[in-house]
Amino acid sequence: MFVKNDEEKVAIVGVGHSKFGKRLDVNMNELAWEAIKPAIQEAGITQRDIEFYSVGNFGYWSEEILPAVTIGEYAGLKCGSLKTEAACASGSASLKIAMDSILAGKSKIAMAMGIEKMYNSPNSTIIELIGRAGNYFWEFENFGMTFPGYYALYATKYLDEFKSSEEDLCEAPVKAHHYGSLNQYAQFQKETTVEECMKSKYVSRPLKLMDSSPITDGAAALILARGDVAKKLTDTPIYIESQGYATGTAYMGRRDNYLGLEASRRATESALRGAGLDGIGTNFDLFEVHDCFSIAEVMAYEDVGIAARGEGIKLLKDHQTYHDGKFPTNLDGGLKAKGHPIGATGISQAVEITKQLRGEAGRGRQAQINKGRALQHNVGGTGHYAYVTVYSRGD
Amino acid sequence: MFVKNDEEKVAIVGVGHSKFGKRLDVNMNELAWEAIKPAIQEAGITQRDIEFYSVGNFGYWSEEILPAVTIGEYAGLKCGSLKTEAACASGSASLKIAMDSILAGKSKIAMAMGIEKMYNSPNSTIIELIGRAGNYFWEFENFGMTFPGYYALYATKYLDEFKSSEEDLCEAPVKAHHYGSLNQYAQFQKETTVEECMKSKYVSRPLKLMDSSPITDGAAALILARGDVAKKLTDTPIYIESQGYATGTAYMGRRDNYLGLEASRRATESALRGAGLDGIGTNFDLFEVHDCFSIAEVMAYEDVGIAARGEGIKLLKDHQTYHDGKFPTNLDGGLKAKGHPIGATGISQAVEITKQLRGEAGRGRQAQINKGRALQHNVGGTGHYAYVTVYSRGD
Repeated sequence: MFVKNDEEKVAIVGVGHSKFGKRLDVNMNELAWEAIKPAIQEAGITQRDIEFYSVGNFGYWSEEILPAVTIGEYAGLKCGSLKTEAACASGSASLKIAMDSILAGKSKIAMAMGIEKMYNSPNSTIIELIGRAGNYFWEFENFGMTFPGYYALYATKYLDEFKSSEEDLCEAPVKAHHYGSLNQYAQFQKETTVEECMKSKYVSRPLKLMDSSPITDGAAALILARGDVAKKLTDTPIYIESQGYATGTAYMGRRDNYLGLEASRRATESALRGAGLDGIGTNFDLFEVHDCFSIAEVMAYEDVGIAARGEGIKLLKDHQTYHDGKFPTNLDGGLKAKGHPIGATGISQAVEITKQLRGEAGRGRQAQINKGRALQHNVGGTGHYAYVTVYSRGD
Repeated sequence: MFVKNDEEKVAIVGVGHSKFGKRLDVNMNELAWEAIKPAIQEAGITQRDIEFYSVGNFGYWSEEILPAVTIGEYAGLKCGSLKTEAACASGSASLKIAMDSILAGKSKIAMAMGIEKMYNSPNSTIIELIGRAGNYFWEFENFGMTFPGYYALYATKYLDEFKSSEEDLCEAPVKAHHYGSLNQYAQFQKETTVEECMKSKYVSRPLKLMDSSPITDGAAALILARGDVAKKLTDTPIYIESQGYATGTAYMGRRDNYLGLEASRRATESALRGAGLDGIGTNFDLFEVHDCFSIAEVMAYEDVGIAARGEGIKLLKDHQTYHDGKFPTNLDGGLKAKGHPIGATGISQAVEITKQLRGEAGRGRQAQINKGRALQHNVGGTGHYAYVTVYSRGD
């Protein structure tokens, strides 16, 4: 890795996170402000200092059809902006845009946020719209696939190939809910058990309700600054070292196999290369992975490379992805327990990583920070999009 | 303006444009390919050379809910991507993202495209969705505003303040249709007259059907390359010198006045500053402005600064914005006659500017190129978003 000047770096200097859950008590602008306000305060800046902002939002169910505008106005921002969508990786896309704006010399301080307000829509609308987030023409309209159905194909193949069980998959929500119970922003702040998971209804066999991330309202925000500016604003800048991204086929029938997501693997390789690392090794203190379903978490372990193919389940069962394990992962409760407000998820993961790398995650959740480096894995669709981002304290 | 190295520049090296109009003969992916294919061919590259692409798309009416993915797959692209929305300025937002990706050092070649497929939806859906592109809560739901209604407020004020007439506004579609008649990609390739315009039905008084841009299906694409790469790919790179952007209030009731769009003015100032210019002067050979309604074209003249406040109508009536006038504007027929496929419009404007600066616009449409510089003005909503971009041959 070549050495960069401060002017060639981007760091997170402030983060904010709304309470995730069923948030019928606020409208979209108010929900956004719950995340933006603390981010601005933490950074010690005012709205005027923000020169560009991007909003990650899927939003087909929203009443406000130009969310970046109404949110910006409510938050007192007058600079340029845009909305971005990369399905469930919209938050990472938002991060890319704000980061690139700084690296391109267009802004010194920019905001990347993400938001989704889903509970205002009827369930049937949400199920249809998420179902269409595959290939509409071939799979939704012709075969009636729903979104859990896509991941159920992967789960079926995985369980068969590696002689694993539904009970094994249920270890994922057990971990997620454990950490969710310790996270004040999480949608579900209670523990669960393998038994409770096994008793929950099938959503799409073999995936059950407790294998599935919920419908969530939520927002998260990051204030980004150019390296030299960041150093003036904070003693604990968290640098974005690199980002890798890839797009995968939308046709499930064209996937090579159902034992992982090719786009995740390509994005990870690219992110590691960008950070000057030759592999996962012991380079990372912490991981955030896209666990929209139990099987997604297991595949993520393998795609990112903290487990060999077929060994993700074992890693989970051995508690190696708990906070005191070898590869601490999703210590915020993940999409499963923290919640999955689509456009906000990628930013929420970055907020968690920032707090962890600063050592502010709190009792029972804080990972041991040695290398000062973390990796985020954020998937859109079923690997239609993959964004992998490497963060560091810059030690 | 400080001198930039080639590595610090971005240039357009290939453009593509679909036929605009009612395109029920193709699906979204096929429509996109009509623009992507010629852009790639012109640039003399293959799909593999594209390292990132962004898709400008409003898209609430689309069946394909992840257009960037399905389009990329159909076009043979495997790199990272995202969709962006900045209302009717989505195309310019797409350009910003692809350009910043290059300037940020993330890609050497990137594609910025825009697309909209509107005719598949019922008219009532389109009218509702565009109407909601203001402030949903206050103006659409409570007052029943439609989108033409917003611009009609501006037209009413303007005509009253500057003692102009509806006949005067009709000069805008006369010019637009004249150039549309010469543009093979335009939705309406026929001339019109002030009389015909005056006889057309009111959409929202004082704006008539012929004052209004149409519903359009269409796509446009740009291949962008870092300056040093661009020089190897083409003898006629068109550089993006600068871009300015601003966000305006979504509440019409909070606008300072109805005699122009504040966001347009701020974005223009910023773009000119970025290009090292102290004003419009005689610095530009060509303009593309956002003429979604006749009044929008007139206000754009004044906001961009080719006419003083209240004198835009005179500029139009004196034919100073025709190809042989002082400030040639929208020589492709503009949104009015070429068509206005929302997410594609900003890219379509850039395609036109590229062809004009290369001297390839053709008989009757080609502006005289002296300074080798052009300005693009692209508005989202009624000034909710404004993006202004400066292009040059780099003479």
